[in-house]
Amino acid sequence: MNFASYAEDLGRKARSASRLLATTSGARKDRFLALAADALERGASPILEANAKDIAAFEAGGAAPAAIDRLRLTPERIRAAAQGLREIATLPDPVGRVLDSSVRPNGLHVHKVSVPLGVLFFLYESRPNVTVDAAGLCVKSGNAVILRGGKEALHSNLALHSLLHESLRRAELPPDAVQMVSNTDRAVVGELLQRVEHIDLVIPRGGEGLIRRIAAEAKMPVLKHYMGNCHVYVDRAANLDMAEKIVVNAKCQRPGVCNAAESLLVHADVAEVFLPRAAAALSRQGVELRGCPATRALVPQAKPATEQDFAAEFLDLILSVQVVQDLEEAIAHIARFGSGHTEAIITTDLNAARRFSAAVDSAAVLVNASTRFHDGFEFGLGAEIGISTDKFHARGPCGLQELCSYKYIVYGDGQVRE
Amino acid sequence: MNFASYAEDLGRKARSASRLLATTSGARKDRFLALAADALERGASPILEANAKDIAAFEAGGAAPAAIDRLRLTPERIRAAAQGLREIATLPDPVGRVLDSSVRPNGLHVHKVSVPLGVLFFLYESRPNVTVDAAGLCVKSGNAVILRGGKEALHSNLALHSLLHESLRRAELPPDAVQMVSNTDRAVVGELLQRVEHIDLVIPRGGEGLIRRIAAEAKMPVLKHYMGNCHVYVDRAANLDMAEKIVVNAKCQRPGVCNAAESLLVHADVAEVFLPRAAAALSRQGVELRGCPATRALVPQAKPATEQDFAAEFLDLILSVQVVQDLEEAIAHIARFGSGHTEAIITTDLNAARRFSAAVDSAAVLVNASTRFHDGFEFGLGAEIGISTDKFHARGPCGLQELCSYKYIVYGDGQVRE
Repeated sequence: MNFASYAEDLGRKARSASRLLATTSGARKDRFLALAADALERGASPILEANAKDIAAFEAGGAAPAAIDRLRLTPERIRAAAQGLREIATLPDPVGRVLDSSVRPNGLHVHKVSVPLGVLFFLYESRPNVTVDAAGLCVKSGNAVILRGGKEALHSNLALHSLLHESLRRAELPPDAVQMVSNTDRAVVGELLQRVEHIDLVIPRGGEGLIRRIAAEAKMPVLKHYMGNCHVYVDRAANLDMAEKIVVNAKCQRPGVCNAAESLLVHADVAEVFLPRAAAALSRQGVELRGCPATRALVPQAKPATEQDFAAEFLDLILSVQVVQDLEEAIAHIARFGSGHTEAIITTDLNAARRFSAAVDSAAVLVNASTRFHDGFEFGLGAEIGISTDKFHARGPCGLQELCSYKYIVYGDGQVRE
Repeated sequence: MNFASYAEDLGRKARSASRLLATTSGARKDRFLALAADALERGASPILEANAKDIAAFEAGGAAPAAIDRLRLTPERIRAAAQGLREIATLPDPVGRVLDSSVRPNGLHVHKVSVPLGVLFFLYESRPNVTVDAAGLCVKSGNAVILRGGKEALHSNLALHSLLHESLRRAELPPDAVQMVSNTDRAVVGELLQRVEHIDLVIPRGGEGLIRRIAAEAKMPVLKHYMGNCHVYVDRAANLDMAEKIVVNAKCQRPGVCNAAESLLVHADVAEVFLPRAAAALSRQGVELRGCPATRALVPQAKPATEQDFAAEFLDLILSVQVVQDLEEAIAHIARFGSGHTEAIITTDLNAARRFSAAVDSAAVLVNASTRFHDGFEFGLGAEIGISTDKFHARGPCGLQELCSYKYIVYGDGQVRE
């Protein structure tokens, strides 16, 4: 196979579909979402059969149980994916909204209007239900998408794609609005990442290694976060009951996700009271602590923390702990070790809350709430395609609006420039 | 000189200054703008002396008169630059604005708040007054900037920079908020374009060749437009008096700029009436026409247009002309040859206006107005640092708001996630 011409063909078809999709009515896009949701529920059997083939090969290859579980589709998971599409259909059309407008002194009416980005290239791993979510978000936002799932999920993804393709056709939308890379050779990805003329944005979701490779290689913008080394800072003026509850939630409620806390900073004035009780509560949840010398003086069971520990995203029941002398030291620690994803301060001091939220340069800063709330649904944006820690274009949860650009449309009645 | 360590030093200093600048009050930033404006007017003599040195060398090197004029500073041009700073000071602070907010069912208050991008690297050619404009826009938007002007303007730029530096110091802002690349070896630019950890955004302004080189080399996002091949489409339902006035204005009012018209599309139904009179009006302004066969049948003095002519940004008194059979052919012609910068339609037909403005994928689409209005001042955004034809982050004129990102600041009272 000629990888370059395969990639070129995918890109050209996507660009051509995106031009039609950009001016499609919301009703037609929502009709696709409804048809695809119904088709998923009615067509579950062939999808489950394809998935069984993937699972068998993955098990034979010796994959870990957690990885196999991520790959597995069940009737419940398919129903949940269908439900996800129906929820996207209920969201307002993000395209064609007037984001801002003004009437100029010369009578020109200037409108800033949302438009789709164009063509997205979405790379992801294992979980095949992401195929459905991503297709739904992209079509609703008027973008054509090229999907590239994990090799191990290929049969499942092709079965899902065939159904999405048929639903596009039935909704009278361009079937190339959603394409699947069916050749999983890495060279195809490399070719696609060069094609700025066909692809407007790359969204990689997966491990840090994958994302760094894509970002280094792509010639077009990449929407991404490398990792979430999220901090909870317990201020001198914290309500310590609240602080304990939030630290335990941020660390333990779902330790394997990007907005879980990985590091705890405690003001020296409250460390003696707070750290032993927090350590006890965390230990009851099975959390291993790795602390600075001051922490270990108060919490003997804590292991010594290295610089690597303070920079780590554990994605596990491990928490690094640092005692800081004041708010500024907490801010400096986060600037040095943080990943710009999510940080929280627990305090009753208004000045501390305002200083922390202004000076900490992260996509989300929470005051007296768990880091786990940094999420599109929790922020009220609806479904999200990912979280960005970049500052360019979109930062934080990326939902339908973040998959849009804008253009200026100006109405006049013959104005010329003097 | 070690280019890598020089670039690293510029980058580190800019990053460090940007952290301070990000939380600086608007009053202090405006004080810098006022001090710098006064200093420019009071310190005009050494700037004019430095500029005379640049001009002498440039003339000795055989530069063209137009290029020499762009390089030249005069007392009037310095006063205009000072006045530009005072105007930026009157604009509202773009940092810290609540762009959106919601109260979630669990009581969380979610705020989307504007923040600076961080560190900008701004490359430009000849005109030294751009040094002052760019520094003003960057400081006001809370961004540190590394400036790299043209080699031929180095003495002028260093004189201006020394004054800006002193004004930062007097306003108690970090002097490294505005740095100038004083070593004009191209290798320094190459080194800076690799430093994603220190530079958040590159803005190149100049010829297409320069911008393509920068975009290919930069590891960080680039805010840019390559060129403006702008179209005026005269619809079947156009008011032909208005159409003539707008075509002449779009082509002739300032032919050397990116939003000047380069191509005229005329609906076949009005070509016979419109083209001869438009050609006469354009000829009176000295415009050379290059037309399709249908155009040349109506306007014998028009030269034959090649595909290259339809793709060209002339920046001169030359206009390509194509007769189209209908609105869709005009849209397709623009999709094929346009640069996504600015297009205008002249029509009294509401459906044609709506279809054209929706289907034409350009940063600005004007209905019954000259393309020359695509500009930050004309759109009411205040001073601009450039125009973007990209869809990612900012599109169209880029002023203070477009030099900002945002973050989420969330206030709670102890919420944890279930």
